[in-house]
Amino acid sequence: MWISELSQRTGVPVATIKYYLREGLLPSGAAAGATRAVYDDSHVRRLRLIRALVTSGGLSLAAVREVLDALSHTDHGMHFVLGTAHHALISPAAEPTAASRERVAALLDRLGWHVYGDSPLRDVLAAALDALVATGNEMADDLLLAYAEAAGRIGAADVAALPDDPADAVERVAVFTVLGEPVLLALRRMGQENASARRYGIPDVPPPSRPRTR
Amino acid sequence: MWISELSQRTGVPVATIKYYLREGLLPSGAAAGATRAVYDDSHVRRLRLIRALVTSGGLSLAAVREVLDALSHTDHGMHFVLGTAHHALISPAAEPTAASRERVAALLDRLGWHVYGDSPLRDVLAAALDALVATGNEMADDLLLAYAEAAGRIGAADVAALPDDPADAVERVAVFTVLGEPVLLALRRMGQENASARRYGIPDVPPPSRPRTR
Repeated sequence: MWISELSQRTGVPVATIKYYLREGLLPSGAAAGATRAVYDDSHVRRLRLIRALVTSGGLSLAAVREVLDALSHTDHGMHFVLGTAHHALISPAAEPTAASRERVAALLDRLGWHVYGDSPLRDVLAAALDALVATGNEMADDLLLAYAEAAGRIGAADVAALPDDPADAVERVAVFTVLGEPVLLALRRMGQENASARRYGIPDVPPPSRPRTR
Repeated sequence: MWISELSQRTGVPVATIKYYLREGLLPSGAAAGATRAVYDDSHVRRLRLIRALVTSGGLSLAAVREVLDALSHTDHGMHFVLGTAHHALISPAAEPTAASRERVAALLDRLGWHVYGDSPLRDVLAAALDALVATGNEMADDLLLAYAEAAGRIGAADVAALPDDPADAVERVAVFTVLGEPVLLALRRMGQENASARRYGIPDVPPPSRPRTR
């Protein structure tokens, strides 16, 4: 297909497609004459992935590039490849306190989880715990453990659902790691609403719903 | 304490404190002469909450104002109050497809959860599912159910941990709903890393860790 049809099928403007081509995020099409190129379904798929990561995942183009790079490293074993993609998806955390770092290490020991000692996720979690402490609302050990056990079930379900083909698996990791987050967060808030209804009872008047735009 | 000490104790610049006072986000201090005011621990606590919501929670000042407003509505019953705070914390979602809306309704029916029919969370979840579909990676029913069941456990643990005092509970909801999210998301990714290590084995070479700043 020509670039115009690629644009039509993906909803991405031609100018944006050309930008991704120049930036090397999207592979070139097959040359068809001096100034034209032909694109195929692999371009449609890659373009949809980029757009999903940018618009839904909120990633910068630099982060998108890291994820796409990881998609091409399938020769080091799956755990290496998934870890590389995972790390590229991590937003840098504020420097955590030593106390929270130790708390995270103790939690992982207790759970028996394999998480690399230099994984940036450790600092991300420690910084998130620090942010709660800064409000005067520390997360108690039993609540943190409840979060971790539920998160462990989700992580296991995520990994069990990965396809066998490495490239497919990495693409799925890139998409689900980011785009699965708003799914989980919405479900958690629904779970809170449901638990609140059960604990406190349902009043006659519902809370005001908000307009969808602000 | 004077405003200078308030600034020192919270790490918030005096100019920012004055801005919050002008915007009505922070209650005025007690007048002490024509041009000075005295602040107390309630100001420290409120200021820390605002900063946590802005810096860690990523909320706009308009959203912070909605959360603070909810803190003052403790006379309609707890479920109403928590729902109001909850709704203020929701970022508007893209307009979801009818198919995803129906899928969310069917899921909630199956779970037996009480979530208001006009809760914006339904559209948030439906739009998140649509974003996955747009990448060609629909979330399968069994995976969605695994997410929901884990999220239900988390929501129940969150609500069980609420203090009895309504104002304290609402403040805790505002803080934990937002600042609990990065905790859960980091744990989910750790759960994925652990599950990946168990499914695929741990290679000799760890994946490259990323610099903490970009």
